[in-house]
Amino acid sequence: MKICRFGEAGLEKPGLIDAEGAVRDLSGILEDITPGTLSAAGLAALRQVDPASLPVVVGSPRLGVPFTGTQKYVGIGLNYRDHAREAGLAVPSEPIIFLKAPSAICGPNDDTLMPVGGEKLDWEVELGVVIGTTARNVAEDDALDHVAGYCVLNDVSERAFQMQSAQWDKGKGCDTFGPTGPWLVTRDEVEDPQDLELWLEVNGQRMQSSSTAQMIFGVAALISYASRYMTLVPGDIIATGTPSGVALGRPDAWLKPGDIVRLGVAGLGEQCQRVIG
Amino acid sequence: MKICRFGEAGLEKPGLIDAEGAVRDLSGILEDITPGTLSAAGLAALRQVDPASLPVVVGSPRLGVPFTGTQKYVGIGLNYRDHAREAGLAVPSEPIIFLKAPSAICGPNDDTLMPVGGEKLDWEVELGVVIGTTARNVAEDDALDHVAGYCVLNDVSERAFQMQSAQWDKGKGCDTFGPTGPWLVTRDEVEDPQDLELWLEVNGQRMQSSSTAQMIFGVAALISYASRYMTLVPGDIIATGTPSGVALGRPDAWLKPGDIVRLGVAGLGEQCQRVIG
Repeated sequence: MKICRFGEAGLEKPGLIDAEGAVRDLSGILEDITPGTLSAAGLAALRQVDPASLPVVVGSPRLGVPFTGTQKYVGIGLNYRDHAREAGLAVPSEPIIFLKAPSAICGPNDDTLMPVGGEKLDWEVELGVVIGTTARNVAEDDALDHVAGYCVLNDVSERAFQMQSAQWDKGKGCDTFGPTGPWLVTRDEVEDPQDLELWLEVNGQRMQSSSTAQMIFGVAALISYASRYMTLVPGDIIATGTPSGVALGRPDAWLKPGDIVRLGVAGLGEQCQRVIG
Repeated sequence: MKICRFGEAGLEKPGLIDAEGAVRDLSGILEDITPGTLSAAGLAALRQVDPASLPVVVGSPRLGVPFTGTQKYVGIGLNYRDHAREAGLAVPSEPIIFLKAPSAICGPNDDTLMPVGGEKLDWEVELGVVIGTTARNVAEDDALDHVAGYCVLNDVSERAFQMQSAQWDKGKGCDTFGPTGPWLVTRDEVEDPQDLELWLEVNGQRMQSSSTAQMIFGVAALISYASRYMTLVPGDIIATGTPSGVALGRPDAWLKPGDIVRLGVAGLGEQCQRVIG
C-alpha cells in the first residue's frame, strides 16, 4: 500500500494511492493515519480496503506528511562512506545518532524556509524508515518486523548552525527542515531496502545519485542499534543517512531563495521543494 | 497553580495541589492536561477551579509527568560556568542546543533504568521551562510570556554513550532519562526564575547545590535563542542546564543499581529516583 494524507496543512485527510497513481479519499473509513494505523493490525485492516472503491480525489491537492504522531525523528550521521569523506570526517565505527525536531517535519512539497541568519542551507536525500511496532533492544534479525514502511526524506541542514557547536541538532531542526513523503510505502512493497536508487537535483542539475546498497550500516542494523538506546515507538522516523553530493562538499553550492530541490527514492515517489527567503 | 497527573503509567488522571499540599482530583472537570491546557486560555479556565472543591486523592498514588503532549525536549549544554569547568569544556559563547528523546520522559519518582551496556550513569538537576504558547523568533523581552510554567527536571545522562561520538543525544535519550515533575508550577507563582535554589543528593549525600542565578544564559535568553532555530510549541520542555557536582566531575561516582537520587528546585517540589540494573 501507498498511504498518504492530502489537503491544507493541519486539515489533511487520509488517502491511498491507487493502481493508476491517483489519490483516493480514505476519510470515509478512517479519521486519520495515526501511529495506531501503522501497527500490524492497523495496516492489516487497511489492506481490506480496495482503493478502487474509494472516491478519487479531484485536482492536485497538497500532500501532507503521510502519517501523524511522530514522537522521535532519529537521524543517522555519515552513513555513506563517500559522504563522510566529502564532509572531511572519519567513517564511523558505530552509527552516529542525532535527533531532528518533530516541529521540522513538513509535507514533501512544502516550501523550505531559509531561517533568519541562515547562510549555508543544504540538502540530503535519504531513505526514511517508519516504525510500526514498538522496538526496544531488538536483534538485527528481528528489526525489520518493526517497520511499518518506508518514505523519501530530505534531511535539510543549515551547515553554519550545525557546525557552530559540536551538536548538530540546531542546524538540523529548523522549521521545514523535514520534508516527508509523498507516501508511506508499506514494508511488503519494498523487496530490499538495501537496493534502492536515490537521487537529488537542484534546479534540474543532478547532485546526488547513489543506492541504499552503499550504506555503512543497513536499515536492520540501524533499528537494532537505536533500539538499544531509546525505545522506538509507532510513528518514529529513522533517517538513514545521505550519500555524497551535498552542498557541503561543493564550492558555492549553498541553496538560495528561488532554488528548486527535487529528490526521490526508487518506488517511494518524489519530493519537490522551493527555497524561500 | 500546581498542576499534576497521578496514577499508574499510561492511566494518569489530572490533578491540582491544594493549599495543604494534597493532590485533588481534576478528572471530573478535565480529561487530561494537554498542550491546550497549557495555553493562556486553558490556564485561565483552570484558575476558575477552587482546588478545595475537588475530591482529595487518598493514599500516595504515583505521580506521572504533569502534562502530556511534549513534542520537543530541548536541552541546553554547559549553561553554568562551574559545570563547564568540571566537564573540561569551554564556557560557550552561545547556548548549546541538543534534543532529548521524548520517549525518555517519565514521572518524577519513576525508577531510572541502567541501559544495557551502561557504565557511566550520571545525574543533572535542572530548572525545566514548559512552553504554553507557540514561540517563533521571539524577542528576549517577550520570551517569558510564552511560558506556561516551571518544573524540576533530572537530565539523566550516560556519559560513555554521550561521549562516544560528538553527538550527545544517544547518551541523553535513553528510556527513563527524563524525570519530569512532580508538578508544573504556573509562571505566576514563580517570581523570578533566575533566583531559585536547586540541589541534588545521591544516597543522602549532597552533590549539587546552586542557584539558577548562576546560569550563563537565563530562561528568557534561552527561549528567545531556541525560537530562532525551531518553533517552540505548547508542551515543549527546555532543560536549562545543570550546575557543577555531577559524577562526571568526581572520581568513581557513577550511579549504580540501588542508588537513590533525590533532587529539587525551590518552590517546584522534589523528585526521587531509584537506579535499577
